[in-house]
This record gives sequence, structure tokens and C-alpha cells, in this order.
Amino acid sequence: MLTTIGLNNRGNRWFLFASRLLHGLKTRVTFMNARPLDLSRCAIHTQTTKPWSLAQCIEGYGRAGIRGISVWRDVIEPVGAEQAGKMLRDAGMQVPALVRGGFFVAQDAMARRSAIDVNLRRIDEASAIGAQMVVLVCGAAPGVALPEARKHVTEGIAAVLPRARSAGVKLAIEPLHPMYAADRSCINRMAEARLVCEQLADPMLGIAVDVYHVWWDPDLQNEIELAGRQKTLFAFHVCDWRVPTRDLLTDRGLMGEGCIDIRTIRSWVDKTGFDGPIEIEVFSQDYWSMDQNEYVARIAEAFLSHS
Amino acid sequence: MLTTIGLNNRGNRWFLFASRLLHGLKTRVTFMNARPLDLSRCAIHTQTTKPWSLAQCIEGYGRAGIRGISVWRDVIEPVGAEQAGKMLRDAGMQVPALVRGGFFVAQDAMARRSAIDVNLRRIDEASAIGAQMVVLVCGAAPGVALPEARKHVTEGIAAVLPRARSAGVKLAIEPLHPMYAADRSCINRMAEARLVCEQLADPMLGIAVDVYHVWWDPDLQNEIELAGRQKTLFAFHVCDWRVPTRDLLTDRGLMGEGCIDIRTIRSWVDKTGFDGPIEIEVFSQDYWSMDQNEYVARIAEAFLSHS
Repeated sequence: MLTTIGLNNRGNRWFLFASRLLHGLKTRVTFMNARPLDLSRCAIHTQTTKPWSLAQCIEGYGRAGIRGISVWRDVIEPVGAEQAGKMLRDAGMQVPALVRGGFFVAQDAMARRSAIDVNLRRIDEASAIGAQMVVLVCGAAPGVALPEARKHVTEGIAAVLPRARSAGVKLAIEPLHPMYAADRSCINRMAEARLVCEQLADPMLGIAVDVYHVWWDPDLQNEIELAGRQKTLFAFHVCDWRVPTRDLLTDRGLMGEGCIDIRTIRSWVDKTGFDGPIEIEVFSQDYWSMDQNEYVARIAEAFLSHS
Repeated sequence: MLTTIGLNNRGNRWFLFASRLLHGLKTRVTFMNARPLDLSRCAIHTQTTKPWSLAQCIEGYGRAGIRGISVWRDVIEPVGAEQAGKMLRDAGMQVPALVRGGFFVAQDAMARRSAIDVNLRRIDEASAIGAQMVVLVCGAAPGVALPEARKHVTEGIAAVLPRARSAGVKLAIEPLHPMYAADRSCINRMAEARLVCEQLADPMLGIAVDVYHVWWDPDLQNEIELAGRQKTLFAFHVCDWRVPTRDLLTDRGLMGEGCIDIRTIRSWVDKTGFDGPIEIEVFSQDYWSMDQNEYVARIAEAFLSHS
């Protein structure tokens, strides 16, 4: 939908770029103060290249000059966490996150207890693969009212924080788009993630900001600033919102292909002092169908031009 | 996903009903203080029965004992507003709303001017069909940042309010779910609708609350109370959020088929003193494919059991 013709002066703090709306034929020129990027801050979530195994991800990302990798559990499963950790270390990969823990919400107390056990194992696995944090998709369940669900989340996180501390693994609450409030997460804005962080007040607990989920939020800039001050801004994920979006789950776009003003959001994140990895997390049936090596090259290009 | 077995004592202020989660086999018993309902407060949006013409809607709703109808423009178009008004009056229908005006957002000033002209015509049509209000889907456009888009909305509404006053037709801002923030509306929570109302401070301007769009909002109860105090609660729309939802546009459920706790939300609306029509607005490819008379009977049943 949106094509951006980049004219990036990367040696400079300021970017000039011209965006051309294919369907509007209007030109806008925007100055932004997001910091220049190179691939040293780039990380890819393995789910982005879903057809690949962990070995293929490590090799394929490395070939494109990308040394950051956030590891989803499905690629750990076939080799085990110890072996996965060895592969990642041997290749010199940086691992921002293991994805994903959470899903603390259930009507049944036994199911909630079992979710806590699963999350304890996630923390151990994160430690084994050298991941800095576990990303938490907090959970939701039809029949559990959202305020009650948020209590389950707070209780669940409280129960696993001691293990996170002893393992030196951070926990990052990822607010999910409100379209996932029924069955995936009762934490749908940064504000609700912040409330959990404030309640538990633990330096190991923070927030993973994914532009896909929060770009629409009128309070986003304030909440990012606040997370910066509260030292809870643990992660920054990018992709784009396609217009139209054809599927609720698997139609994310690469940066620059949708309507999200990623550079402006990143300038807010930069301003907090965040200088960690910028993680690419794209679920796309279309992209999963193409040659994954070509795809990773496009990811790198989109990262440099539109993140 | 969610099946509710109703045990409604309608002569009583209190409802007892048992909800049974098909996939969880858990039973919950809930007491609620929403007022008992009969069909006298029921209205259907013509888009709900999309295969039908206006004449078929009037006849079909009437056959089910429903005298409320919110009229979408596509069923007015073939007969014209004057004739549509005559048909509705002759049948003794109550018309809460003409649907829909709005779409005030555009990069181009000429396009914005033209949107205002369209909305002036919508107000005239609403007056011709005897509708109490025009529902506004405010608009959004990729390439227009959301704060800027909200200015277009405020300016657009300000420009048409004098006509609304002289025609005696109210304008109701409908906050749309954040999944429509890219291309349908930059007003995604009651809070943003309230800000526009506060800025323009006109008794003819208020809010249409549709549970589908706002059920997830942690501020919903507060905002409904506030709208009650500010006398901006103009309309209440119901349907349900299916789990899973298979399409962003046309997979709404009938009341009771999804995860929205409609009775609790209605109890908040009741508490403000709102006693207007409860409008059913369902877009569903599945339901559009079935016999529309049978469908309207199911709507009436779902209205009484789950709204």
C-alpha cells in the first residue's frame, strides 16, 4: 500500500525521506530524529522465517549479516535447549529473547498452576540458550472477565519472578493488540503492562513494545516515555500493519509495507536511551511461501530503510 | 465457542443464568442487574440482513415483532430518502439511526470539503426518513497520522453541526475497534470520542457505543458513566465477538455466541439512565447466507436471552 522512496543520509542524525502513497499520489516530506541504524542492532524472530530450523535460521541470518536472533520454542524443541544454546554460542549469535512464555489465564486453578510450571521451564530454557529475556504473551480466556484475567497474570508473573531473578533472565510483558483480547492476551495496551510492572516492582520485569500491537494507541508516546523513566522498556519489535489486513494472525507486513509510522515510534524509543536490539517479528503466510534466503535479504533492506 | 443456557426470570430485576463453556466444561453462575428486556427496545440495523431490501426489512422485522430499524444507506439508495421515509412511517417503524456518515479524514483539503458535503446530505436524508441520529464512522487514512486525523474529524463535525441542529438530527460518533485504525476510524476508544464531544460541546453531538468495538477497553465502565453524566450516550449497539474471529469485517456473532459480557456492559449503560433502543448490528457472511426470516427469529431470541 505504502511505498517509501528512501533518501537516507545515514551518517547524519537527521533523515530526509519522501513517502509516496501509491493510491493517493501525494508526497510528504518528513524529518525525523530516529538514530541512524546499521544491522548491528538487527535481530530476527525465528517465527518470521517459520519454514526454517534453528540451524537454518542461524546460517541464513548470518549470511545476511544479522547476528541477532530471538528464538521461538518450536525451533528449540527438535534439538533441546542445551544443544540450541551451544549452536547459538558457537555461531556468536546475540539472543534477545526466548519466545514465548505467559498464558497465565484460566478459569481452573490447576490449569493456572500448570501454566506457572511451564513458565518456570521457559526461564530455564532461556538461561540455557543465553536469552536475555522471556517474552510473555500473558493469556486470556473466554469466560474469564478481563479484570480477573489480569489478576491471573499478575499472580502468575509474581510466582515465577524468583526463578527469573536467580536465573538472571528478564521477563518482558508484550501488550497484544485488542483484537487478541478474547483468547491471547488481556494486556492490550502499554498502560495495563505498566500497571502489572508497578504492582510487582521488580527490576527483572518490564515491557516488550511491538509496534504491530500498540501503534494505534493514543497514549503510546507517553507510555514509552514513562517506561523509559521506570526502566521497564526491555524490547522493541517491528513489522508493519498491512492495509487492508486480510487475516488476524498471519498477514503482517515488512517494515514500510503498511501504515505504521515506525520511525516516529522508534524516535520515542531512542529518546528513552534504549539502545538494545530492534527485533523483527513478522507472521506472514505470503512470506513463509517464498524463498527464505531472498526473504531475509528483503528483511535486512526493510530494516535499514524503514525501521 | 460459548454457549449460554439461559434461565431468565424476566419479571424480575435479577437474572440468573448459567453459562457453559463448550470447550472448558466449567459452569459459572452470574447475577446481573441489567434491566429485563422485551422486544419494544429492539432495533435491527438493515446491514444485519444485508440480502434484504428496505421493504423486506420492514416486513421481516415487523413479522418478528420488532419495530426498531436503523437504516443503512444502501437500502435507501434504490427508493430515495423521501420514499424510504414514507415506507417507514406507514409501517410505524422507529428509526434510531441513519448509518453512516463520517469519513472526514483525507490528506487532501478538497477531499475533506467533499466529505463535509456528503455528511450534510446524510443529515438531510436522516431527517427525511425520521431518523433520530446519523452514526459517524469518523474515518482514517494511511499516511495521515492519527492525531492529525482526529483534527480532521473534529473540523468535519464542527462544519456539519449547524445543519444537524437545524434539522433536529443528532450526530453519534461510533468508536471503532483499533483493528480499523488504519483505514476506517481514528477514534478507537470512547475516550477519543469524548474528547471530540468535549471540544465541540454541542447537545446534538454524542457517542454510539457498540460492544463489538469497545468491549476490551479497560476504561469502558468509567467512560460509559462519564458519557451518562455528560449526556452524550446516544446509542447502544450489540452483537458478539466470535472466538476465533475468522475475518476482520464479516465474522461477527449474534449475542451469546462470543466472549463479550453484554449483560454487564448493558448494566453500566442502564445505570446512566439510558432507555433508548438496543440496536443489533451484525455483519456475518454466515448469517447473510441463511434464510433471513429464520435469521431474524434467531436475532429476536438472542436479543431476549443475551442482551
